[in-house]
Amino acid sequence: MSASLGLRDSNEASWTQVLDILEFMADATTIPILVDADTGFGNFNNARRLVRKLEQVGIAGACIEDKLFPKTNSLLDHREQPLADINEFALKIRAMKDTQQDPNFCVVARVEAFISGWGCDEAVRRAEAYLSAGADAILMHSKQKDPKEIEQFMKAWNNQGPVIIVPTNYYQTPTEIFQKWGISGIIWANHNLRASIKAMQATSKLIFSEQTLANVESNIVSVKEVFRLQNDQELVNAEKKYLPAKSKV
Amino acid sequence: MSASLGLRDSNEASWTQVLDILEFMADATTIPILVDADTGFGNFNNARRLVRKLEQVGIAGACIEDKLFPKTNSLLDHREQPLADINEFALKIRAMKDTQQDPNFCVVARVEAFISGWGCDEAVRRAEAYLSAGADAILMHSKQKDPKEIEQFMKAWNNQGPVIIVPTNYYQTPTEIFQKWGISGIIWANHNLRASIKAMQATSKLIFSEQTLANVESNIVSVKEVFRLQNDQELVNAEKKYLPAKSKV
Amino acid sequence: MSASLGLRDSNEASWTQVLDILEFMADATTIPILVDADTGFGNFNNARRLVRKLEQVGIAGACIEDKLFPKTNSLLDHREQPLADINEFALKIRAMKDTQQDPNFCVVARVEAFISGWGCDEAVRRAEAYLSAGADAILMHSKQKDPKEIEQFMKAWNNQGPVIIVPTNYYQTPTEIFQKWGISGIIWANHNLRASIKAMQATSKLIFSEQTLANVESNIVSVKEVFRLQNDQELVNAEKKYLPAKSKV
Amino acid sequence: MSASLGLRDSNEASWTQVLDILEFMADATTIPILVDADTGFGNFNNARRLVRKLEQVGIAGACIEDKLFPKTNSLLDHREQPLADINEFALKIRAMKDTQQDPNFCVVARVEAFISGWGCDEAVRRAEAYLSAGADAILMHSKQKDPKEIEQFMKAWNNQGPVIIVPTNYYQTPTEIFQKWGISGIIWANHNLRASIKAMQATSKLIFSEQTLANVESNIVSVKEVFRLQNDQELVNAEKKYLPAKSKV
Repeated sequence: MSASLGLRDSNEASWTQVLDILEFMADATTIPILVDADTGFGNFNNARRLVRKLEQVGIAGACIEDKLFPKTNSLLDHREQPLADINEFALKIRAMKDTQQDPNFCVVARVEAFISGWGCDEAVRRAEAYLSAGADAILMHSKQKDPKEIEQFMKAWNNQGPVIIVPTNYYQTPTEIFQKWGISGIIWANHNLRASIKAMQATSKLIFSEQTLANVESNIVSVKEVFRLQNDQELVNAEKKYLPAKSKV
Repeated sequence: MSASLGLRDSNEASWTQVLDILEFMADATTIPILVDADTGFGNFNNARRLVRKLEQVGIAGACIEDKLFPKTNSLLDHREQPLADINEFALKIRAMKDTQQDPNFCVVARVEAFISGWGCDEAVRRAEAYLSAGADAILMHSKQKDPKEIEQFMKAWNNQGPVIIVPTNYYQTPTEIFQKWGISGIIWANHNLRASIKAMQATSKLIFSEQTLANVESNIVSVKEVFRLQNDQELVNAEKKYLPAKSKV
Repeated sequence: MSASLGLRDSNEASWTQVLDILEFMADATTIPILVDADTGFGNFNNARRLVRKLEQVGIAGACIEDKLFPKTNSLLDHREQPLADINEFALKIRAMKDTQQDPNFCVVARVEAFISGWGCDEAVRRAEAYLSAGADAILMHSKQKDPKEIEQFMKAWNNQGPVIIVPTNYYQTPTEIFQKWGISGIIWANHNLRASIKAMQATSKLIFSEQTLANVESNIVSVKEVFRLQNDQELVNAEKKYLPAKSKV
Repeated sequence: MSASLGLRDSNEASWTQVLDILEFMADATTIPILVDADTGFGNFNNARRLVRKLEQVGIAGACIEDKLFPKTNSLLDHREQPLADINEFALKIRAMKDTQQDPNFCVVARVEAFISGWGCDEAVRRAEAYLSAGADAILMHSKQKDPKEIEQFMKAWNNQGPVIIVPTNYYQTPTEIFQKWGISGIIWANHNLRASIKAMQATSKLIFSEQTLANVESNIVSVKEVFRLQNDQELVNAEKKYLPAKSKV
């Protein structure tokens, strides 16, 4: 047993392992879920299979990015970031759109032109190609600490279609600025994950150092709240309806 | 799509879905993991298959409880809690111990006698039977707000073998008391989960109300910390060793 | 590694492992698939979850039987076969019917009264209860070498609803007899499996003894036929449409 | 529901779906299993994760081929077959060998130089590089109807290490010829699959046309034989040991 097998991102899990987790999520909520589907986990054929499987488990949409597989995390330093062939990527989007059976399923095309250092012209060229191919929205990614690349793109883009951003690094810009530029959607990407890590580290540290739960309870939700989130009342009601009293187990 | 499919406990997931999550956990850490394996997910045959599969993915031990399948959560009110046949349950433990290939794998027998209202004599009788059958430890469960049932059991038990408790409800008792009674281990069961729910609810609420991340960053770990937990440095080193420069992707 | 972990029936696999195989089957064909779902893999709650998951992967119906879990194979000798509580089982069927979203999804209730030695009156009583609860059809099972139990049931049943049989043991009775009795469907259950085992054993023996494939080819389909069954032509056509020539990989 | 989702090869399944099937196989037999692992399902990092997972489920070895992912089936006509960078592929093999914990785990390097039309010199150059990197054997593939490419390679190879062949197309050559050339192992690859398809097609056709099982029984194994293959006797013995008489279910 070694720690080196821990999953670093969805390149290390298989696409069906990602799907299994998405299925748990979709089963637990009616909130629409947009999945970060990397490059589509292969060529057009893998991508269209993905769409069918996502639809089956109730996922609302998929975002694929124009990188090559296997890829590295966009925010890791000092790694080269070649881009996918623009024509092949556009046809991959078309294959996905041709495959979906639910007219509301969304395919979002994530453009990595800024991340890879290719600049704004390339970003616009790709966004246009993907939109023409059927993408429901463009996700324009930038890892700068300020949103200058995004601003530059939005001016050149000139409202040709919906644009989504992920301000993980340039989070200090007020949202009204983004709205003024015509951005349609913002993904606040990983903050719940990062909040839960902080909370769990603090809780574990507290229990370890104090060797008791006495001071933990104020920082955590009640067991009742956990049950509420699990919709336990529905099960209680269903047991009344479907489980005869004498055979309750 | 409906919220009623959200998983309430491991009775609703299949045992291999539980196993898949355990595999992710074991892959990510070298900390030994003891799994709450309900009733063993069936009879002795299912339980011994479980042991083999847990060993394959690197889980350190399994705790099974002497209830009937399908069961309800011990802490839910107003549901009947019949117990398993003591002889069959003891033989299930023996089957698990006979199956394990790693001598360090642990089988913990959880006694539900107090939960079901059968009292201390039954709790002792069952703990003795399970220890004789090969259990490495007894997990004595109580849902009282104070640890009187546990205290009563520990006196009657008289140090026949290791005892583990789960003070979710009687958390205000100082740990030294438990140690004085001779308790070997304490499971602080769900506090990291409950801490992370609280943190995620607060973070989501903050982002929703302020429509910006500006005030979120102080409550969350950095992206770098996420990478550290994923052991990203190992991958960076491995890429130097196994990925020739010209073909880096 | 030991042979004792080989799966004997769907009691040893988890219900999601069964589901995964069903998903591969449903993906590969448009023929409607009726799944043998044992007892529903738990109580009403597990059974209704199963329905939702079967619908998601495109399975046409599920057959559940009124035995207790974990059960043994009906055709194994000398094992006791207690039956489920009739009222609980009927409500389990109702829960499944209430859960399905596709009006064409079928729930078939398999009656094990004959298998367990309870006789015809109990078989009729149970068939009526399950039909009232919403079952789309009754599967009446018998392990006799002749169909006398089935004949007896069909007379007493008097066409109250559709009946399916599985003549694995009484296979020598001509089908017209079954039709005359008013039986709606026949499941020829495991003959493709048993045919493929015979074929694989013969093929392996031949290759092993002759140490060559020279005499094997006449007993097997061509590789082209395998591709045809995989619908390879669809992929060839799709590649023309979605994979630009220069980037074919 | 459409037939186009049927799996054509392991490019369409995820690598963990392949692993799940391998796990069923390894659980059911003590015969060592060598898995066709395509290109290793990604870069060195995916390949070494694969090794760890294969070892966990008891697979004896993996064969990876020096193509690019996603790839097409080697035997399909008219598709281009570029090869992997020789240095990267050799380091991928090394990463796999460095990862394995069981000294008996085998990594076989499949050379696609002949398939792609690069000829014998390239085949030898690659076989040498992969052997140096740690490959336990070379699998030299050819899709010709005669084994001339293999003969040519074996002369040039001059017994530098073990060589395995897959005579799917050149099956008419007697095995002694291969032995004389110094070939270490032969994979008779898909004949059991192809035999079982033929048997199932014939059985289904017979049942469909005759509407009875009367003439099927002679072409299939008995149900008892199915139970024997499932090692049912082991379960019968185990029930005597672990399942008390009164609670048998």
